[in-house]
Amino acid sequence: MPQPRQMHLGVFVLGTGNHIAGWRWPGAAQSFEDLSVVQEIARIAERGKFDLIFLGDNLSTDPGMHPSFAARFEPITMLAALAATTTHVGLGATASTTYNEPYTVARQFASLDHLSGGRAAWNAVTSSGEKAALNYGREHPRHDARYEIAEEFVDVVRGLWDCWDDGAVVRDHATGRYIDPAKVKPLDHEGRFFRVKGPLPTSRCPQGQPIVLQAGSSEPGLNLAARTADVVFTVVQDLGEAQAGYQALKSRMARFGRHPDEIAVLPGVMPVLGSTTAEAREKLNRLQGFVNPGNALVMLSSRLGQDVSHYPLDALVPEDLPLPDTSHGFAGAMLAKAWRERMTWRDLFNLAGAARGHWVVAGTPEEVADTLQQWFESRACDGFNILPAWFPGAFEEFVDQVVPLLQRRGLYRRDYRGNMLRDHLGLPRPRSRLF
Amino acid sequence: MPQPRQMHLGVFVLGTGNHIAGWRWPGAAQSFEDLSVVQEIARIAERGKFDLIFLGDNLSTDPGMHPSFAARFEPITMLAALAATTTHVGLGATASTTYNEPYTVARQFASLDHLSGGRAAWNAVTSSGEKAALNYGREHPRHDARYEIAEEFVDVVRGLWDCWDDGAVVRDHATGRYIDPAKVKPLDHEGRFFRVKGPLPTSRCPQGQPIVLQAGSSEPGLNLAARTADVVFTVVQDLGEAQAGYQALKSRMARFGRHPDEIAVLPGVMPVLGSTTAEAREKLNRLQGFVNPGNALVMLSSRLGQDVSHYPLDALVPEDLPLPDTSHGFAGAMLAKAWRERMTWRDLFNLAGAARGHWVVAGTPEEVADTLQQWFESRACDGFNILPAWFPGAFEEFVDQVVPLLQRRGLYRRDYRGNMLRDHLGLPRPRSRLF
Ligand SMILES: Cc1cc2nc3c(=O)[nH]c(=O)nc-3n(C[C@H](O)[C@H](O)[C@H](O)COP(=O)(O)O)c2cc1C
Ligand SMILES: Cc1cc2nc3c(=O)[nH]c(=O)nc-3n(C[C@H](O)[C@H](O)[C@H](O)COP(=O)(O)O)c2cc1C
Repeated sequence: MPQPRQMHLGVFVLGTGNHIAGWRWPGAAQSFEDLSVVQEIARIAERGKFDLIFLGDNLSTDPGMHPSFAARFEPITMLAALAATTTHVGLGATASTTYNEPYTVARQFASLDHLSGGRAAWNAVTSSGEKAALNYGREHPRHDARYEIAEEFVDVVRGLWDCWDDGAVVRDHATGRYIDPAKVKPLDHEGRFFRVKGPLPTSRCPQGQPIVLQAGSSEPGLNLAARTADVVFTVVQDLGEAQAGYQALKSRMARFGRHPDEIAVLPGVMPVLGSTTAEAREKLNRLQGFVNPGNALVMLSSRLGQDVSHYPLDALVPEDLPLPDTSHGFAGAMLAKAWRERMTWRDLFNLAGAARGHWVVAGTPEEVADTLQQWFESRACDGFNILPAWFPGAFEEFVDQVVPLLQRRGLYRRDYRGNMLRDHLGLPRPRSRLF
Repeated sequence: MPQPRQMHLGVFVLGTGNHIAGWRWPGAAQSFEDLSVVQEIARIAERGKFDLIFLGDNLSTDPGMHPSFAARFEPITMLAALAATTTHVGLGATASTTYNEPYTVARQFASLDHLSGGRAAWNAVTSSGEKAALNYGREHPRHDARYEIAEEFVDVVRGLWDCWDDGAVVRDHATGRYIDPAKVKPLDHEGRFFRVKGPLPTSRCPQGQPIVLQAGSSEPGLNLAARTADVVFTVVQDLGEAQAGYQALKSRMARFGRHPDEIAVLPGVMPVLGSTTAEAREKLNRLQGFVNPGNALVMLSSRLGQDVSHYPLDALVPEDLPLPDTSHGFAGAMLAKAWRERMTWRDLFNLAGAARGHWVVAGTPEEVADTLQQWFESRACDGFNILPAWFPGAFEEFVDQVVPLLQRRGLYRRDYRGNMLRDHLGLPRPRSRLF
């Protein structure tokens, strides 16, 4: 009997909430620099049988940013701390392909995969923010150059993950041999950007290979995703556009010899729940009322990849605004919506302040479940990356009020079927390609 | 009433034991790739009121190495996992100043310090093994060049740790202001090797600055330590030499305007305990009997920083062997002992196999406590970095049999007096130098 198709769910973790002013909600967590806050989020995610929790990262900061961007931890370090206090939920973190070394990144995620018993996921990003360069004493490579580097970077990391075959650690007490050297090989990579000999000093991961996430939506970003990703995060504001984007990515996979089911596409969505539609909208308005426009301006300029702080707040967003070199996903989806709906800069600030450009769905639990079901069944996605406006309350509401509806409708698992993230995603454990 | 001078104790953590064949001891832990093994070691360390646990690191591997060098985790990731399941013990890990970026290292240890409530320590090493270069597509800088880079690297990391003043996160619900921008400054470092703007995206650490460990013993290594370290690991084989080295380091601190008490010098020692002296020696012989000479050769060549595999095992170690560019500490201490005691290569293999060149003390708990007391009181050190031959047994023996003797003699704390590593070390919390 074939399994019915079911959703995958992730949660985008920012301690002070995904809404820029989420920390101002009564009872909301006040800090992303607090392990206990994130441990509680992880517990709620496991109660909701989530596939994964996700921690993003940026390589520069500004005190005017979203509070959880301005003051936070290095995400792999944070996830490793969570590995010890969780049992099932996948642990995804961002690491840049532009400002790291593949040997280091491969080691970190291999270590995290072991520490968590097979739950590590790497969000490979090219780092769109050019201010990162100032912290690394370098020139920020251009958009397409960053993706050329990223293509090779991902291959090197995956190659390093393949350097140990299963069963290499033999621990033979009779002979004193601890490792079978025939099961450990160098990678001997010599490419355009990287020379990496290998092997890693870490044996093969529980998952074989940790999961690879990706979130780019430019042409080279889609190619990288279609070729290498297991999970793709998208930015959506419109069902038709989401369906088209989904279809485009899935059909692109064939170019790389892959089956469409090998990638789960998860758009970001901020659910705002109320016992009536009006109450949900009221909640969203109250949240929006907390937004400090000064902050929203800094953040919107960074979301759009260009300084827009000189525009009058109540002018229409001009239709000839250029698409920047940096982040096609957010800028594209937000600007398309602004033009479609003839938004002012203030409207766009509100949109960006709410969920940084992601889709916001306000309604009753039934309405939200209906919408998610519609998107899922009409092949706009394979599930969702949930962006609770604040923690833990808004996340608990989703897990306690919407998840049970999805379960009752057969759209979502009632329990984990395995312990590894691969199990949740329904992906087989890959064999090493070096043996 | 002035506190009497008391020892500081660290434990060098290698899952399969510090002895190269420690895993072959009955009941010994079998893997360094096992969080539960290291969690148990950390529990024992806290029972023994240890200052810190320490995880080393190397940036290349070889299946013939010490099993816990060949197959292990990236140490910061591992420590972060331990942060969640420990409460007092300091968490020290190695990160290279030659193959990392200061912005990344500063973030990792700042994050670890927050996650652990003020228990992070960074062992800043220059990476002596030239094979690291092959994994990073680079030339391995020469010894003295590595230290020039390290001097600047450590300053940048410490500068980044100073970018946030205490109290910068205000979370003002009335105004919506989350951060006071006057309390966050860039570093604006422009040096010979690094250009780093800052600030970090992480607020000031619980310890103000994480602790800095160092373990170099060359001339430039001692300068770096005298100027910047809080704790120094040494390699010793002889009381007189240890006293001279201790005195030399402490007096060198004055050049940098520091007081001798601002550094704790901890030589590595492997205690092997028995209910009689003969039983302890018997245990050590049994351990040495487990050594596979093939492994010892690979490891000894790496310890001495030169290929010595062509020498006949039973020839004397030649007195004209050059001191390598790589690791003065181990090579120097081991070769001095070999020449002093007219050792053959086989003897030296045994020495290196036992504790990688560190000092081995076999005896009853009283004898071991006497020796440690003598070294401590005669100013050869400020405490010890304990290298149990295997885990958990040999470490439990030390904690249960030797630590109580040291406590009874007033040489060692009976309980922690604070929660942070700085508290254990008796070091004040530094103010930011940027404010
Ligand atoms: C859900 C989601 C999470 C993201 N997380 C990060 C992140 O943590 N760090 C980052 O630099 N970029 C992040 N991005 C940005 C993208 O990964 C990508 O780098 C950016 O959109 C530019 O790529 P593109 O031009 O191909 O769209 C994220 C995007 C999405 C949709
Ligand atoms: C207890 C101890 C631990 C050490 N741990 C590491 C380590 O984890 N990684 C490393 O590359 N070097 C390590 N070293 C080596 C030294 O930090 C140093 O790099 C080496 O001795 C070369 O420096 P020198 O020439 O100044 O002696 C360690 C040394 C000692 C004594």
